[in-house]
Amino acid sequence: MEELIKKIKSKQDLSPEAEAYIYSISKKKTFQKGAELIRQGLKVTKTYFVTNGILRSYCNDKNGKEHTLQFAIKNWWISDYIAIHNNKPATLTVECLKKSSVIEFNTEKINKMYALFPEFEPFQRNTLERHIVSLHQRILNQLQLTAAEKYDLFLEQYPDIEQNIRNYHIASYLGITQESLSRIRVEKAKR
Amino acid sequence: MEELIKKIKSKQDLSPEAEAYIYSISKKKTFQKGAELIRQGLKVTKTYFVTNGILRSYCNDKNGKEHTLQFAIKNWWISDYIAIHNNKPATLTVECLKKSSVIEFNTEKINKMYALFPEFEPFQRNTLERHIVSLHQRILNQLQLTAAEKYDLFLEQYPDIEQNIRNYHIASYLGITQESLSRIRVEKAKR
Repeated sequence: MEELIKKIKSKQDLSPEAEAYIYSISKKKTFQKGAELIRQGLKVTKTYFVTNGILRSYCNDKNGKEHTLQFAIKNWWISDYIAIHNNKPATLTVECLKKSSVIEFNTEKINKMYALFPEFEPFQRNTLERHIVSLHQRILNQLQLTAAEKYDLFLEQYPDIEQNIRNYHIASYLGITQESLSRIRVEKAKR
Repeated sequence: MEELIKKIKSKQDLSPEAEAYIYSISKKKTFQKGAELIRQGLKVTKTYFVTNGILRSYCNDKNGKEHTLQFAIKNWWISDYIAIHNNKPATLTVECLKKSSVIEFNTEKINKMYALFPEFEPFQRNTLERHIVSLHQRILNQLQLTAAEKYDLFLEQYPDIEQNIRNYHIASYLGITQESLSRIRVEKAKR
């Protein structure tokens, strides 16, 4: 929690009242590997700030194949924002890939926070803009990079994640087959 | 311009001062087909709200191949947000695919607007959140849909755009080859 408060304070002034409100709407939680914080098909009322561990969000397509939208490590947020924004059941599942600690927020209480403490708005605007930029970049990378380049970039962006997650997690994030991923690794080892 | 003001007013109260400020930082402009509003490599200081026409943003990869990030039609915004947010030269080019009318905003003056008129913050937060949701959905579609499904979805999302743009525009947005696109169209015609 202290990390999140520090992060906010590095960007803006935070009144004691606003800080107290953040504490009042959040809960520290620890989940074991395999725990599902959000499950495809169910209502979504929470969003999570990761303080430790690795989580991922993914969907199952009509053939049951998994597709990974996001990995979240320390200091990242994760939830199903499609479901929250459209007020629909989850299209994503959010699971822990190892034992993870998060700060859980009720999304309605976060929304109320902006009315009570409008000073959060510029911070949030900046966070959302940064997120949009990273998504634009991901779409462009997805369109223009070769599978091997996508994998190299993944290792750069998530340097310590590989030993904690399975091959199909990576392949389903990069949009390539596990066979391609294996081939790329063999080629990479030869370099 | 009236459309944009109407759009804002449908979501929130807008003081005469705030409305006057929007007018003061914006300019109506009309561009011919082929005009480039933003060019890869140059500084980006503007963002555009489309009132008529079709624009697209794309990058060239190291082999000169084009990859389309976005099409923008009436009531959409377009710019190079990667460049603006990172304060770097454009990685994208924004061009008109037909004669188009836009409202041009200076991005620094938009940023000042939030300090002068904080009442814009909730509107902008909602706009950014909606944009994030559509990008999440696009990434998931990119990962899980077949080329034919991607094309069907494209036609649904941009119903009147096809006759105004070239095959390679669509192919470079969907991340498929022009040959695949032709094959899909032939198959679709048979259905």
